[in-house]
Amino acid sequence: MIQFLPPDAIERRSFEIILEEMGDRAKLIPADQLSLFQRVIHTSADFDYLDNLFVSPDAVSSGRRALSNGATVVTDTNMAKSGISSHAMNLLGCKVVCRMADPDVAREAKERGVTRAVVSMERAARETPEAIFAIGNAPTALVELCRLVQAGQVRPALLIGVPVGFVNVVESKEMAKALDVPRIIAMGRKGGSNVAAAIVNALAYGLTR
Amino acid sequence: MIQFLPPDAIERRSFEIILEEMGDRAKLIPADQLSLFQRVIHTSADFDYLDNLFVSPDAVSSGRRALSNGATVVTDTNMAKSGISSHAMNLLGCKVVCRMADPDVAREAKERGVTRAVVSMERAARETPEAIFAIGNAPTALVELCRLVQAGQVRPALLIGVPVGFVNVVESKEMAKALDVPRIIAMGRKGGSNVAAAIVNALAYGLTR
Repeated sequence: MIQFLPPDAIERRSFEIILEEMGDRAKLIPADQLSLFQRVIHTSADFDYLDNLFVSPDAVSSGRRALSNGATVVTDTNMAKSGISSHAMNLLGCKVVCRMADPDVAREAKERGVTRAVVSMERAARETPEAIFAIGNAPTALVELCRLVQAGQVRPALLIGVPVGFVNVVESKEMAKALDVPRIIAMGRKGGSNVAAAIVNALAYGLTR
Repeated sequence: MIQFLPPDAIERRSFEIILEEMGDRAKLIPADQLSLFQRVIHTSADFDYLDNLFVSPDAVSSGRRALSNGATVVTDTNMAKSGISSHAMNLLGCKVVCRMADPDVAREAKERGVTRAVVSMERAARETPEAIFAIGNAPTALVELCRLVQAGQVRPALLIGVPVGFVNVVESKEMAKALDVPRIIAMGRKGGSNVAAAIVNALAYGLTR
């Protein structure tokens, strides 16, 4: 039976169902991470994230602090950018930036024989080294970001490493997990631009709703 | 080990891995649907779609025909719109339209006390009744579209019904499966804007690559 409910009631009911189905697993999740897990499962209908999602102890607090200070959020796809609530970003005075499709990024990448992901991460590192970086698609972007962290050229307020796929994805996330920065990583193959956006939204809604 | 390969080689290798892991299941998939299944799994890293994805026998041929005739693709999120290859759409002379965030859609929805999904589907039905409709998020949009099909007000070249979630989602997809139009439906809870975009891309790349 289709239930005719307003959108916010549907979302509330969805979160209740997710919590019920988590069962005792929910008790193992730190209180400040619960809505994060719920929103990722809400956006994917995939309870595997209960096992896959690595959240460093400082990730939620550092991500929230950055968002409440008007941080820039750097994404690796326009799809992730589209999925982040522009309403919440406006309320917080935050900006979402994706350089992947910029014509001059493509030009520089071609000239240097590197990927657009590398060039766009380098630029973001120069422009906003303390941004929230949300990587939902390109393992090459995540690997480059890890390299920039290791070189001390970027110090993300939060690194969201959730690319999806079958080649270089698992390895890029192992690299990211080993870093010493606030980080949320979907270990294994799963993730995506939708998951990256959901994580940013979960943190933002915690401040705006 | 990170493998340094060009993006098209990474995608090719990913599709090979997916095919290998499908095993004998791949033999059960009609030849013209194989790349569709591969691309959906590629975008989600989720082999559940082998079981979930319902593809009507006319879906691929009708979707391809529409795309090769410059069809409009109507989405229910800007995220799905962002995920559809603009390069492929340009090559095919196709257009992707999402009315959900239009200010006058919001205004009309408020005045009439209905959701934006309802208003935006009604408008799309008037403007492009033979479009490809790709619904990756809002079950209310899919339910409204089913109603418009039943009322003879829209005749989609292809209906992609892959909303994700926990309330009204399963039911909306059962409704869509029962229709007599070319259709691709992710049964159950799973789906998403990324899956909707991947299905459009799979069909489009079959024509452009």
